[in-house]
Amino acid sequence: MIPLLLFSVMVSATVFSLCQAAQLSEATQTCLACHVSVMPGIHGDWLSSRHFRVAPKEAMSLPLAQRRISTSQVDESLGQVAVGCGECHMLREEAHPDSFEHNGFRIHKVVSPADCANCHPVEAEQYKENIMSHAYRNLTGNELFSLLAGSINGVHFTGPQGLDQAPPDHFTQSDSCLSCHGTKIEVKEPRKRSTSMGDMDFPILSGWPNQGVGRINPDGSMGSCTACHTRHAFSIETARKPQTCSQCHQGPDVPAFPVYKVSKHGNLYETQAGKWNFQEVPWRVGKDFTAPTCAACHVSLLADPEGEVLMERTHRMNDRLPWRLFGLVYAHPHPQSPDTTKISNKAGLPLPTELTGEPVDLFLIEPRELHARLKKMKGVCLNCHSGSWVEGHFQKLENTLNTTNRSTLAATRILLRAWEQTLASKQNPFDEPIEKLWIQQWLFFANSTRFASAMGGADYGVFANGRWNLSKNVSEMWEWLRQTGVLKQEKKQP
Amino acid sequence: MIPLLLFSVMVSATVFSLCQAAQLSEATQTCLACHVSVMPGIHGDWLSSRHFRVAPKEAMSLPLAQRRISTSQVDESLGQVAVGCGECHMLREEAHPDSFEHNGFRIHKVVSPADCANCHPVEAEQYKENIMSHAYRNLTGNELFSLLAGSINGVHFTGPQGLDQAPPDHFTQSDSCLSCHGTKIEVKEPRKRSTSMGDMDFPILSGWPNQGVGRINPDGSMGSCTACHTRHAFSIETARKPQTCSQCHQGPDVPAFPVYKVSKHGNLYETQAGKWNFQEVPWRVGKDFTAPTCAACHVSLLADPEGEVLMERTHRMNDRLPWRLFGLVYAHPHPQSPDTTKISNKAGLPLPTELTGEPVDLFLIEPRELHARLKKMKGVCLNCHSGSWVEGHFQKLENTLNTTNRSTLAATRILLRAWEQTLASKQNPFDEPIEKLWIQQWLFFANSTRFASAMGGADYGVFANGRWNLSKNVSEMWEWLRQTGVLKQEKKQP
Amino acid sequence: MIPLLLFSVMVSATVFSLCQAAQLSEATQTCLACHVSVMPGIHGDWLSSRHFRVAPKEAMSLPLAQRRISTSQVDESLGQVAVGCGECHMLREEAHPDSFEHNGFRIHKVVSPADCANCHPVEAEQYKENIMSHAYRNLTGNELFSLLAGSINGVHFTGPQGLDQAPPDHFTQSDSCLSCHGTKIEVKEPRKRSTSMGDMDFPILSGWPNQGVGRINPDGSMGSCTACHTRHAFSIETARKPQTCSQCHQGPDVPAFPVYKVSKHGNLYETQAGKWNFQEVPWRVGKDFTAPTCAACHVSLLADPEGEVLMERTHRMNDRLPWRLFGLVYAHPHPQSPDTTKISNKAGLPLPTELTGEPVDLFLIEPRELHARLKKMKGVCLNCHSGSWVEGHFQKLENTLNTTNRSTLAATRILLRAWEQTLASKQNPFDEPIEKLWIQQWLFFANSTRFASAMGGADYGVFANGRWNLSKNVSEMWEWLRQTGVLKQEKKQP
Repeated sequence: MIPLLLFSVMVSATVFSLCQAAQLSEATQTCLACHVSVMPGIHGDWLSSRHFRVAPKEAMSLPLAQRRISTSQVDESLGQVAVGCGECHMLREEAHPDSFEHNGFRIHKVVSPADCANCHPVEAEQYKENIMSHAYRNLTGNELFSLLAGSINGVHFTGPQGLDQAPPDHFTQSDSCLSCHGTKIEVKEPRKRSTSMGDMDFPILSGWPNQGVGRINPDGSMGSCTACHTRHAFSIETARKPQTCSQCHQGPDVPAFPVYKVSKHGNLYETQAGKWNFQEVPWRVGKDFTAPTCAACHVSLLADPEGEVLMERTHRMNDRLPWRLFGLVYAHPHPQSPDTTKISNKAGLPLPTELTGEPVDLFLIEPRELHARLKKMKGVCLNCHSGSWVEGHFQKLENTLNTTNRSTLAATRILLRAWEQTLASKQNPFDEPIEKLWIQQWLFFANSTRFASAMGGADYGVFANGRWNLSKNVSEMWEWLRQTGVLKQEKKQP
Repeated sequence: MIPLLLFSVMVSATVFSLCQAAQLSEATQTCLACHVSVMPGIHGDWLSSRHFRVAPKEAMSLPLAQRRISTSQVDESLGQVAVGCGECHMLREEAHPDSFEHNGFRIHKVVSPADCANCHPVEAEQYKENIMSHAYRNLTGNELFSLLAGSINGVHFTGPQGLDQAPPDHFTQSDSCLSCHGTKIEVKEPRKRSTSMGDMDFPILSGWPNQGVGRINPDGSMGSCTACHTRHAFSIETARKPQTCSQCHQGPDVPAFPVYKVSKHGNLYETQAGKWNFQEVPWRVGKDFTAPTCAACHVSLLADPEGEVLMERTHRMNDRLPWRLFGLVYAHPHPQSPDTTKISNKAGLPLPTELTGEPVDLFLIEPRELHARLKKMKGVCLNCHSGSWVEGHFQKLENTLNTTNRSTLAATRILLRAWEQTLASKQNPFDEPIEKLWIQQWLFFANSTRFASAMGGADYGVFANGRWNLSKNVSEMWEWLRQTGVLKQEKKQP
Repeated sequence: MIPLLLFSVMVSATVFSLCQAAQLSEATQTCLACHVSVMPGIHGDWLSSRHFRVAPKEAMSLPLAQRRISTSQVDESLGQVAVGCGECHMLREEAHPDSFEHNGFRIHKVVSPADCANCHPVEAEQYKENIMSHAYRNLTGNELFSLLAGSINGVHFTGPQGLDQAPPDHFTQSDSCLSCHGTKIEVKEPRKRSTSMGDMDFPILSGWPNQGVGRINPDGSMGSCTACHTRHAFSIETARKPQTCSQCHQGPDVPAFPVYKVSKHGNLYETQAGKWNFQEVPWRVGKDFTAPTCAACHVSLLADPEGEVLMERTHRMNDRLPWRLFGLVYAHPHPQSPDTTKISNKAGLPLPTELTGEPVDLFLIEPRELHARLKKMKGVCLNCHSGSWVEGHFQKLENTLNTTNRSTLAATRILLRAWEQTLASKQNPFDEPIEKLWIQQWLFFANSTRFASAMGGADYGVFANGRWNLSKNVSEMWEWLRQTGVLKQEKKQP
């Protein structure tokens, strides 16, 4: 009977709600008095959570490798009760400009990584060094990337000077790039709102709602744990499943999830994951699961079937990433610092490579660190694959970094010639048709080809935004240049 | 043991078939005598259905909110037996021109919403007022849309006059637009066909097979319930799962499903739905499921965990839709009538807005109705989200409607200039390259951006047919106009 | 209790590993002594396999229709033990140039279809006649297709002669087209590698890793069973699920899986498959599953609920495929031989049709064989659908083959005119912009439209690379021709 019973607990939300909960704090009980009926959805979600079932002290009593809590001490007031409404939404009031009076309590809406750090300090610290936590600032604080965002999000209109583009408004930015990168949330004046419980004051938050990975919270912290650990179940199962990553890694600029899906790993996930155990900590290779998800390779604490740790957990995901494959003009060794706003190339552009591809070594990890990360990444692969398999795989990937960079270089040389001949203006390098073709070359096609190579995604390296598109796009750029007649003129010049 | 047993019933098709069935009618038993072996697939599917297990009278005995049957009276002959072959395929013989003699019975192949109305009259009535039921007529009875369909489906050939396009044939129309919109099914002469049971006569049906949402049935009714309630299990689970909607809402013209998948809601569905209960009526928020599917927001009867109704079921899906976001040149308040063939703008075009975007108020819902629908929609959100969350979300959406409409306007102004300068002909506004770019602006890119905004689909509002594409496309349209030299000529004119 | 227990076995990997295994051979036990800890992932995967649980002799004792093993005799040494490491990786040493010394054993890494044939000879023989097994040679041994691959995979650069393209390197070919088509694996010199067990020699294999369907193995055999029967569980469930096919059938050139997903069949799979039994042999229509997957239509042994065989298993998938719908310029009757390198049209091109579409009958199946295959395919459909449904469906498909071929012809005629007028050079018919538009017409848009028609995939026949794109693309080709001024010149000629 025991395995069946465990199984039913694992799969039935109804059964979850029958489980013995940890004791609820008085504050949480007061919240629930209304919110059980006012927001039944999140209440039910929370009932299925470990936060509901296990109090921090109990969580801390587990052997180290099995713990999902990384603090070694927790406030007496919090230790013995379930992690409920009050435990998160009332924490660190003094640090929260978004704190407000609500039925006798001071609460805040925007629970931040600094709040979560109360029980999960190691993960919060690691995440600060994860480039994702800087996603807002690395975008908005980079002059070039801001130009790119503006050339995408600004609304076009036909004015007296021809086609023109208004600067993007605040809501559009939030709804577009910042949807994933994170918004800056600021507290505005309170506003009265009539609710089913009567009129109440709530602070207006600009940039809200948002769950972007680099969100700037009212308390000054960066990121949103719920980007991956979705509220209010905060299920490790969700974080470990690849669809979670697809929220931001789906489009042509960063097709990690589509590529994963058609890979062998994705094939096993899609056809076998119903039999896997996504709850166990540590996550046992070959016992709990038999093919990696995004988390398995880049984040999770992995163990062998006996629970012997094979790979440490990290929320500094670049720990296992030697190169930055996507988002920039050329693939290059990972930046040293998660804050990339400091980076500047020889030409004074805020880019980690020259426009012609040479990496700006000063800001990037050194070969020694690159190889250390590569070795760590390969260490994950070796749990299922032989050394020659793994070497062969990464040889192909390194070759792909090289060939896609060269493809981008060909496109860049065409653009540079267009700029030289004033066929386009480099003042804004992102707004003219030929420039948009150039962007496609690296942001879509080179990226897609690299992801396909890195994860074995076949057609994403060929016809689905891969090498077919790289070749077609650069041919079209050249055809455009040819049609302007400038090539003939160049020939005439001595 | 009880929850486990219930669970096993829920998940095992094998167990289903062991369940006690309702009594079978003599007609159905006769059908099954052959069809158990002639069509084992649909027989097995039906065995897993509620139609097989529960007779109408028993279904009617449940408390109102738990009923899946909306009639308050059913024929004595039908009430006590399972809903089997005979109960649907022999119903309303007199109304069915497709009725034919088959082994001693008069049966029809095309079971229509008017047949289903025998037990589900409320849903059938609501669906008549759902714009989807008019999908065939709204397309084929609209001169402009017919031109658009023709310019897509007609086969090109190079004739003496240059590139030309034949009008689309009947099969192509059925296989293309009408695959989702629905065909018109007409009864042709009977044809003898040799079957495993000997030679038999069957009527030939033109436009068959088809399960489009606005199918014109031989009995004159509109729609096909099996578009969503797929035969022959007619499982409410299928109708509630979002993949059902993806059958028609997947492509770049209406990417609702792809957007949903990468949204937070989709993330929870993809990672948690294995634990949800998709069978329960009413559907209990926070107990049966913890994140909405398409049906939860737009159709389903929702209740709190105690079964208290929170939102009424509707098959008039526009009940919770203030705006029409997709399919037309501009987003606009929803049409008043599901029959949009009556709509005409000031310029005499069968469109709900002018070509420059102004809504044709006469045919569209008034602000009061728009706000009532918006409030209803928000009412669903509030079961999980706070008021400020919901307000913030819809502020962004309204802004997106505005900006995408303006983006389309810029593209339209370029096209209008091309028409004025006879660079293209507006006689058919859909067949020339510049016109096809214009179509992309609203039909793909503005739509995708709006869906992404409405459901939190991130990249579908940026690089995956979103604002990136809006900006790139309008730039290309302008570049084309510039290259024709017409802009210089215009300047010279006084 | 019994159904529950069966169910738990079906879904719980943990329970799998508790199952009674077949006895392990000494060789396998020796392998496992290290590999349990060195590669826990594949060990765990294998523990869940039937290879682990059932020895060949036991497998052979089942009634014929229930067998998953097709040999009628197996070596005494292999018959009584589990199919473990030693049983596959040490088989047929003499035939394996990749065999090497490893801790006292001669083993090989590349297990080939000829190895699998030891127990599965019927499948291996059938697969040899499946066009997929020839995928490497049919691509690399065809002069035209090699040109196409080169024009895609070669890296562009801007040299003194303008834009130029280097020939593709070996790694890129492996990572691109050959990722699915299969590489040629050749044994190079051994190389010492330091492992967790000390330094060891391993042979270097070029073209490794690869699991393409037409891989040329060191033993000379063609194909990789693990392309679909993924290691090391070799689960029939995986092979039967459609995501397996998506590994190679996802992109715009061959969108079978995306089309399936939005079809009615895909809808049922996505919403109901959790209740299906993917393990049973034979696979019982209406009992184990109620809608087909790719395998159900094209490969699987199907039975009725009582186990009576309805359709034989085949690994020569063209058995049920009358036409080749994709990959070539025009849809046409299936080639007679899986080796298509012999095919040559009247113009001497290695194509199964003329450039203007006429099929090269000599190399293609005759009408009689075509109708036999069509009848077989329809035989699958008839397990759920009526004759008139099936006839109507295939009428639409045949019409689509005709219309898409005509659409391609229009594009081809434009290209032919461009070649005639030396606006492009036919020396390489795949490298210039106008040629790339032509390729899109057939390789993407005509293919997608046909798949949509064949499987009921709605929007993939319209806006998602369907007829919309066919019409838009040919219009753009014509516009390009018009802009060159050549049309006016032609008119002037007598």
